[in-house]
Amino acid sequence: MRTLLLPLAFFSISAFAENKPNYDEQFLEKVTTLRDHALTDNLAYDITESLTTEVGPRLGGSENDAKAVAWGEAKFKALGFDRVTLEPATFQRWVRGEETAEITAPYPQPLAITALGKSIPTPKEGITGEVVHFATLADLEAADPALVKGKITFISNRMSRQKDGSGYGKAVGARGTAAQVTASKGGIGTVIRSIGTDSDRLPHTGAMKHDHDVATVPAGALSNPDADLLINMLKRGKPVTLKYTLGGYFGDEYTSHNVIGDIIGTERPDEYIIIGCHLDSWDLGTGAIDDASGCGITMATAKLIKKHIGPLKRTIRVILWANEEYGLAGAKAYHEAHKHELDKHILGGESDFGAGTIYALGTRVDEKAMPLVDAVMALLKPLGIEYANNQSSSAPDLIPLRAAGMAVFGLKQDGTDYFDYHHTANDTLDKVDPKKLAQNVAAWVVVTALAANTNQDFGFGLSDKK
Amino acid sequence: MRTLLLPLAFFSISAFAENKPNYDEQFLEKVTTLRDHALTDNLAYDITESLTTEVGPRLGGSENDAKAVAWGEAKFKALGFDRVTLEPATFQRWVRGEETAEITAPYPQPLAITALGKSIPTPKEGITGEVVHFATLADLEAADPALVKGKITFISNRMSRQKDGSGYGKAVGARGTAAQVTASKGGIGTVIRSIGTDSDRLPHTGAMKHDHDVATVPAGALSNPDADLLINMLKRGKPVTLKYTLGGYFGDEYTSHNVIGDIIGTERPDEYIIIGCHLDSWDLGTGAIDDASGCGITMATAKLIKKHIGPLKRTIRVILWANEEYGLAGAKAYHEAHKHELDKHILGGESDFGAGTIYALGTRVDEKAMPLVDAVMALLKPLGIEYANNQSSSAPDLIPLRAAGMAVFGLKQDGTDYFDYHHTANDTLDKVDPKKLAQNVAAWVVVTALAANTNQDFGFGLSDKK
Repeated sequence: MRTLLLPLAFFSISAFAENKPNYDEQFLEKVTTLRDHALTDNLAYDITESLTTEVGPRLGGSENDAKAVAWGEAKFKALGFDRVTLEPATFQRWVRGEETAEITAPYPQPLAITALGKSIPTPKEGITGEVVHFATLADLEAADPALVKGKITFISNRMSRQKDGSGYGKAVGARGTAAQVTASKGGIGTVIRSIGTDSDRLPHTGAMKHDHDVATVPAGALSNPDADLLINMLKRGKPVTLKYTLGGYFGDEYTSHNVIGDIIGTERPDEYIIIGCHLDSWDLGTGAIDDASGCGITMATAKLIKKHIGPLKRTIRVILWANEEYGLAGAKAYHEAHKHELDKHILGGESDFGAGTIYALGTRVDEKAMPLVDAVMALLKPLGIEYANNQSSSAPDLIPLRAAGMAVFGLKQDGTDYFDYHHTANDTLDKVDPKKLAQNVAAWVVVTALAANTNQDFGFGLSDKK
Repeated sequence: MRTLLLPLAFFSISAFAENKPNYDEQFLEKVTTLRDHALTDNLAYDITESLTTEVGPRLGGSENDAKAVAWGEAKFKALGFDRVTLEPATFQRWVRGEETAEITAPYPQPLAITALGKSIPTPKEGITGEVVHFATLADLEAADPALVKGKITFISNRMSRQKDGSGYGKAVGARGTAAQVTASKGGIGTVIRSIGTDSDRLPHTGAMKHDHDVATVPAGALSNPDADLLINMLKRGKPVTLKYTLGGYFGDEYTSHNVIGDIIGTERPDEYIIIGCHLDSWDLGTGAIDDASGCGITMATAKLIKKHIGPLKRTIRVILWANEEYGLAGAKAYHEAHKHELDKHILGGESDFGAGTIYALGTRVDEKAMPLVDAVMALLKPLGIEYANNQSSSAPDLIPLRAAGMAVFGLKQDGTDYFDYHHTANDTLDKVDPKKLAQNVAAWVVVTALAANTNQDFGFGLSDKK
């Protein structure tokens, strides 16, 4: 799906006949006033608080998945959205089980572990084996299978802290494929250092690669302090034996839903500005920064626009995506269900990087639409937001639509602390600063309102040209 | 024991006949050189790493208690201490069990809980009840029993962050007596907000008051984010029902040991400068800042003095105290066993406040001994250490000896972050900065060497005069 190419005909040159923005002054003043009002508005925080308090953990396919869908539907209605729709998204669910780990020799100690999402389970009594240590995934990949056979591999690479979160992409490969690589060399299990920047005794879960027809092993993440402890024990040169139990397993098929709230456009109701968040979360925390904050930001954005400016020319569509975390199930289902009108998806963005201050706007639009981006930037700059570049990838749930050619934008948040809490029990409401959240809403209001209130286009079919 | 008064005759005026320090220049130069060397010496960190890696959690009375004692004995011998002694300390052990908590209505969510040390257990199936919320212990104490009867009390007061840790004393009363106060009003259980300054999903344990003949209830601490969540749920005005299970219970009698390492004095071998740490730890972490660091600091101090200066006039006695955490068992046993020679305990200090930089020296010595303190301060000031006052209380394990009249000192550590980790699973080696630990050793070397290498006294029997 990610490599889908659309016929060039989808790309309409005529949309750029006039590419100088034609907003009237009164509208721009209203947007400016709302932007400034949003900086002290609490709605995004209240929505975030509501989802984390009244639902909490909401792993795709869990009992709380359905509660989250019901919450989203009720919240959209309570906020006065014009149309609320549930669209099914079906996937095989993965269910977490009991999780324990201990070093049994030479110095017995309990360790904090969590299963990687989509891991197969260990036998009920756990697995026990000698640990073989690799600094990186590449080292494991290069290892002689004789070193790995019958052992538990341990990858200890630590991700680096960066404002833009770029340390994540460099480290997360170990989470993805350590299990399959270990199995291919005859290993019996794998544990990785958590993909996180903290030093808390709370391991980071997250999806791993799983193919039902490829050999794999039960895979867990150790908290950073536990990975340090294991390294210190290994340094002594004696064999270290690890025992762990992971109960997670694949269950039956489950149908969740994308929850869609529309503020219907006055002139072009069938053209959509797509914003939103993912509604599911990992199950260890309450999913506050990942991604209740994104729901708060984008639901508040649409609501405030409707309340303070009124409906605009195009439909503002807020999508609370289903099961982003282990399959992009909602993203795929939406793409499939809306295949006949993909070119009506004018511009899309998703808020899915926590609750930090926004410092930059990235886009991926046709060059001819840059005057529109300039108009947006004129209103974003007073918020301390710079323009990044025109190669933005937006966020995961927009991958299928972007691949299909939809123009996207990304409001880049300061992610310096994001990976301290990401996918851990520590992802809780106290990590969300209401003021920073409000700054996000101010920025989303600007982009969303300007994109929705023009007849001009951002280009479609860009994937053809890359 | 804490109110023991000794006859005035124990207090020897003659010891102050000459109260101007009589250190020779060569000795002071050696101390200065060692102080500066200690700033880059790794021994304290290595000892801390060894105890946390090779033993780890070591709750009094647990299997690891005995391992820690064996570790201490072996480590003293390996470091070349002149005499290593084990002295028994017997207590009724408390054993942690399974711990779970969940809000069952109106919005079911799991919570992170841990039993307070010495709590009674819940029934195996847990207890379930409506939560009644009090901001402080005082509010609970003042409450009408009708409000509490049949309910689970919740005290939500949050401790404040202070360099000197003074927020702890103000908040910890809730941990001590919430259970007994709740029981006295007919409540069925109590949960408190963790006594800690962090926002991590890791609850803080710690001892509560328990008297076998006073009614009590099962008592747990919720992590700070969970206390926040519970408050947010209560704000909605609907009854909130909590279910929790705490398996901790009192077991049989257990005999642990104080582990004592002496560097025997050349001129006054039966006079002791007492330094040390507590060897036990709570069981949730590896007891790195509480109190392996203190063991590292004080064991390294004595070892470095012996190695670089040689034995001094008095005996330097390093005591690794048994079961400080829930009973001061080692402190009481030592006081009892050494009743006949308490006045030979010239000066005492304990390192039990983590691994932060030392910023001040406090003492509790006879005023006539202040010239000795001045001599110490002359060597401490270059380390950034100021003099605090002469009302120091030192640390918990010295309470019986101090009450008996022993002069004490306290090298005050920056505790700004200490209560982020204290008594949690997060008390691990990564929280210890080797450089700060080395600064501690430098300071302890100064105080210990100067106190051990004089014939002069610090006063004994001070408790009579207060």
